[in-house]
Formats: sequence, C-alpha cells, structure tokens
Amino acid sequence: MAEDLSLRVGIVGLGLIGGSLAKAFREYTDCTVCGFDRDPAVVQAALDCSAIDRAGGEEDFPRLDLLFLAVYPQAAVDFARAHGAQIGRSCLVTDTCGVKTAVCAQMTELSRSLGFRFAGSHPMAGRERSGFGASEASLFRGASYIITPCGASPEDVTLLQRTAAALGFRQSVVTTPEEHDRIIAFTSQVPHALACAYVMSPQCLKHNGFSAGSYRDVSRVANINETLWTELFLSNAGPLADELDTLIGNLSAVRDAVRAGDGERLAALLRRGRLVKESLGE
Amino acid sequence: MAEDLSLRVGIVGLGLIGGSLAKAFREYTDCTVCGFDRDPAVVQAALDCSAIDRAGGEEDFPRLDLLFLAVYPQAAVDFARAHGAQIGRSCLVTDTCGVKTAVCAQMTELSRSLGFRFAGSHPMAGRERSGFGASEASLFRGASYIITPCGASPEDVTLLQRTAAALGFRQSVVTTPEEHDRIIAFTSQVPHALACAYVMSPQCLKHNGFSAGSYRDVSRVANINETLWTELFLSNAGPLADELDTLIGNLSAVRDAVRAGDGERLAALLRRGRLVKESLGE
Repeated sequence: MAEDLSLRVGIVGLGLIGGSLAKAFREYTDCTVCGFDRDPAVVQAALDCSAIDRAGGEEDFPRLDLLFLAVYPQAAVDFARAHGAQIGRSCLVTDTCGVKTAVCAQMTELSRSLGFRFAGSHPMAGRERSGFGASEASLFRGASYIITPCGASPEDVTLLQRTAAALGFRQSVVTTPEEHDRIIAFTSQVPHALACAYVMSPQCLKHNGFSAGSYRDVSRVANINETLWTELFLSNAGPLADELDTLIGNLSAVRDAVRAGDGERLAALLRRGRLVKESLGE
Repeated sequence: MAEDLSLRVGIVGLGLIGGSLAKAFREYTDCTVCGFDRDPAVVQAALDCSAIDRAGGEEDFPRLDLLFLAVYPQAAVDFARAHGAQIGRSCLVTDTCGVKTAVCAQMTELSRSLGFRFAGSHPMAGRERSGFGASEASLFRGASYIITPCGASPEDVTLLQRTAAALGFRQSVVTTPEEHDRIIAFTSQVPHALACAYVMSPQCLKHNGFSAGSYRDVSRVANINETLWTELFLSNAGPLADELDTLIGNLSAVRDAVRAGDGERLAALLRRGRLVKESLGE
C-alpha cells in the first residue's frame, strides 16, 4: 500500500503529532524532513534519533513542497501570518488542528493575501501522553486523515491523500470545516469532556477493586492536556455545547426512568442505544 | 498462583458468566462441575465441549460443596426460594449478580429460613456479547472478585477467595452490599447508561471516518442486553440516579463554561479531571 513519495517536507512543532509525522515520513517514505520547534532541545532530540534530517530555518520555506503546521490552532495561524509571504506558491501548507472552521477561515484568508497554497487537515490520532517523547512512526496506522480543502486545487487534495496513504493512514475523508466540526464535537470532544466530568465523582477515588473495562474506557482520556483542549473546545464552542446538551438530555431521560422505577421506559431507552450500535455493525 | 481446588461445584445458568465459570473450573482446577440451565440445548452445548462434567438434577443439591447462581437477580432469588431447603448446610451458595443490596437481603433471609449457607459475590467481568457461546475460561483473568459476606462465616469467605484465585481473578475484595452498590453505580452502571445515551446523538450515524479511540471507548458497551441491565439498574435505582445526577451536574458545568467562552473556568474543570487520574496513578 505504501507509495513512493519523495518530497521536501517541513514540520513546525515536533510534539506528539509533529514528531510522529516526522518519524513516519522518515520511516515509510523517501521524503526529507526539516523540523522546527520553539524549543531547541526538542529539535536536538529529533535530530539525535533521526526523526528529522535537519533543523529548519527561514531559508527553507521557499524550497519546501509540503509544510505541516503541527501546533495549537492559534499558533498555526500566527505562524502562517508571520511566514506566509516567505513560503510562496511552490509549497502546500496544511495544519493538523482538531478544529477546522475557525482555523481554516483564517488560513484561507492568509493564503490569499500572502500568496501560499493551503488545505486544512486533521490526523485523527492521539495518545494519552503528549510531546515528542510520546511520538512514534506508527501513530497513524489504521487512523482517518480528514481533509478540508477550503478551495484548494484537486492536485493539492490528491497530494495530501497520497501523503496520508504513505504515512499509514487507513483512509482519507474529504469534507467541509463545518461538517468536520459538528461530527468531531460528538466523536472526540464530548468523550474528552465526559471523561473529565466522570472522574469528578467522589466515588472515583474508591474505584480500585470495583472496576473493569467500562470504567477504564470512559475515564481513559481524562488524563488531558487542559491547555490544548480548552483552546480546541472554545474554537468549536457552538457545536460542542449543542452535543453536550443532547447528551445531558439523553442521560436525564435514563436517570428519570431509573428514578421512576419505570422498567418499560428504561428498557426502551437502552434498546435504542443497542439498535444504533447494531445498525452501525459495531 | 493456581491452588489445588477439588470441590463438587454446581452452576445454575450457563450464560456468559456461568459458562465461563464452568470452563474455568474445568481448565484451572480439579473440581467437578454439574451444570443447570432452563434451556436443554445450552446444557447439551456445555456437555459437548466438556465445559461441565454432567447435567445437574435436584438430587445433586445435597452433594455439592459450592453452588453458583449465575442468573439474573430475581431468578437467583426465585431459585433459592424453590430449592434452598434441598440444598442444606453442606453446600455454600453464592450468586454472581451485579447488584448486591436487594439480592443479598433476600438471599440472607432465605438462607436462614431454609437452612443453607450463603455469601454474595460479583465477578467483575463481562463482554459485549452474552450467552454460553461467548463464554471462555479466561474471562476472569485480571478481574476483581467482590465478596459481600452478609454474615457468612470466615471459612466460607476464605472458600470463595481460594476459588477466585484458582479461577484466575487478580484479587478478591470483601465489602458490604451497600458500599458495593454505591461504587458499582459509578464504575459500571453509569458507563452503560452513558454509552446508550451517547450513541443516541444524531451525529453518531455519521461517525465513520471521523472517529478514533475515544468514540470507540465510550460507545463500546451500548451494545447492551437491555433486559438484564434494566433489572440491574432498577435494583440499584437510588445510588445509580444519584451518580447520574452527579455526572449530569459536572457535564453541565463544562457545557456552561464552553458556552460562556470562559477559558479559565473550562481549563480549571479539565485540570480537575486530569488531577484525579494522576492521583490514582492512571
């Protein structure tokens, strides 16, 4: 499935995602990778383990074919504003942000005014730990790569799709920023909000010896990077708050049936859940 | 870690839990197992794969050392009422129900009036599928075995602990029915209610291509046996409704901070979740 891919790639931000992208490019493709990070120690660590070919500098921007901005949403926009004019038309810029509407609107405008090519993307992968130390080449194996073209050319979308396939992603999905954000509010942001809300119960501290897979699953992502997730949540506040309303409403319906001792109503609610899972073949 | 264990064991109900108990007794101990199930085809299936030594009958009750009632809560009580007098003092009876206060109160009273020995228990293990076909000897590997003695002798508690160790459980925990039910409402019942409430969102049907581990984890147990879980929920209605109130309250606090765009308040809430996980070493 791996394709020949030989590009000059730049990666800004060598954290979990950027570090894993670098390692995957080096391990699975013929691309050369130059890495940027505000922390020189991280760049050195990436050099030491050959995750990157070399440390990048401003002189690299006009020579790159593909530049990933693997930093927090606002930082990605700030970087594009500061360096977009140097990057020029020969390089496709993409981000890796978990929210797209807010980021893509600003990036698209900057790409037009500063003259670089842009398409948004979101590698749907993560781990409980963050930072370069947690990165690995195999992070994207089996994952989805979501592309929000936002006016990018078909050739640029194809370039991202070929890249995703080479890096080990299972599939690429092309959609709009708005659709991405509505679905991601449900699939990713709600579970993270939920994990934190769940472990706030006073019972949580007593769970040892009384828990099995279902506790572990719901609580897993409570070990959160609250700075990153606060930014992600607030950048998608409308769709996320709406999804939380939906969940709170459905949970309240279950709670009311339990409190009323209404077995018929309760069984009907649980059955609805089962039928959704069955209809999805899960 | 396996101990020598040579008992005459009876198992009533050869579903996921009863079937797995039978297979574990046969694979890891020297016990003989006679199996009971209201469905003769299930008993035959258990015989065919040597999960049990033989089909049990009423004549077995006085000859057993240990009898597991691995059926739904009300069915366990009904079975004890119907057969408790035949069982006699030579056999320790235990159940496997996921709720303990309601079941143990009735079982303790029956054990006194009908003259059998009883201690409650709850093997904290499960799978997404149910029935004998889903059972396996290794189901309890790494799991907790919770014992609610309810007046049982220290020797009987020790017998259950030795049995649990032989069957592969990681640990036994001794507690009261009330404490069990309060903690289980949080660790097990809330995640099941939550999984069903979560997948009711209209966004769920679009998740394919937009989801990763956190969706899979929260939704996993929505594939529920609604008949069993309705009985379990209603048998523990007070503690479960209280835990759902707590979760709904904490989720609402997150939702309100998101909707207000209050980054400081939101980060503080997420941090609380992270600190709980860290304090538990998870």
